[in-house]
Amino acid sequence: MQNHEKWMRLALQEAQKAEMIGEVPIGAVLVHQDEVIASAHNRRESDQQALAHAELAVIEEACKKLGSWRLLDCTLYVTLEPCPMCAGAILQSRVPTVVYGARDPKAGCVGSLMNLLDDSRFNHQTKVIEGCLAEECGTILTAFFRRLRAKKKN
Amino acid sequence: MQNHEKWMRLALQEAQKAEMIGEVPIGAVLVHQDEVIASAHNRRESDQQALAHAELAVIEEACKKLGSWRLLDCTLYVTLEPCPMCAGAILQSRVPTVVYGARDPKAGCVGSLMNLLDDSRFNHQTKVIEGCLAEECGTILTAFFRRLRAKKKN
Repeated sequence: MQNHEKWMRLALQEAQKAEMIGEVPIGAVLVHQDEVIASAHNRRESDQQALAHAELAVIEEACKKLGSWRLLDCTLYVTLEPCPMCAGAILQSRVPTVVYGARDPKAGCVGSLMNLLDDSRFNHQTKVIEGCLAEECGTILTAFFRRLRAKKKN
Repeated sequence: MQNHEKWMRLALQEAQKAEMIGEVPIGAVLVHQDEVIASAHNRRESDQQALAHAELAVIEEACKKLGSWRLLDCTLYVTLEPCPMCAGAILQSRVPTVVYGARDPKAGCVGSLMNLLDDSRFNHQTKVIEGCLAEECGTILTAFFRRLRAKKKN
């Protein structure tokens, strides 16, 4: 888990960047052969773009960098359990391993509501490691939503 | 169904554009208040981009055009049943209605393997109309794969 935590700390730094611009703090990095080739954070509100999730951004960037839609030898680190769109993009890009932090009981599709990454009916399955720095990854989100509720109340 | 067929013919034209550049022929258009605001086709191989599905391209473009991640008053037309990534993007962008042509028994997540657009655990559900010009939408695909197999054989 030691190395996974190192990369997840970078994903958490991305989540903090999201927080600083008022976005739900979720971050991701994509590691290829022990090197970060893409890092991104949620920008849905800033960009007014439904696709602007951290995972999609790193997958798009990594395909460009590697010149291939197949992200072999890659590991995707993300602070929150992926939604169906992002889990689907992980399947489409053939990412071999995903490491995530906190669970998303409301929309997570990699263990919570279902597991799209371990469904033998699809032509790809992805290895999943969950719970990496789960507390930090979860705390940054709950603190964000607590502040948001307090702000709305005032 | 009359109007749906009119828009689906435009999606089929997009599928033909994909075919002409050697891509699996799948096309989509996004209609907002009786006007096409985005049209696209599959470009995965040409762009070497895992995200380059027709549906994602029209959703991205439509968010830009409307300046919002919420695609209200929109209908997405696509020649093939969406995969998990594209079904997830439809949920994320809150598209109210999706019309598709042929079923995808191998990876379709809007009726075939599952229906991600009608799962009450998510915070959005999308109305689905399937089978619009299903024969044309399916034939262009089966003909493409038949030619591909013949080419590989030679």
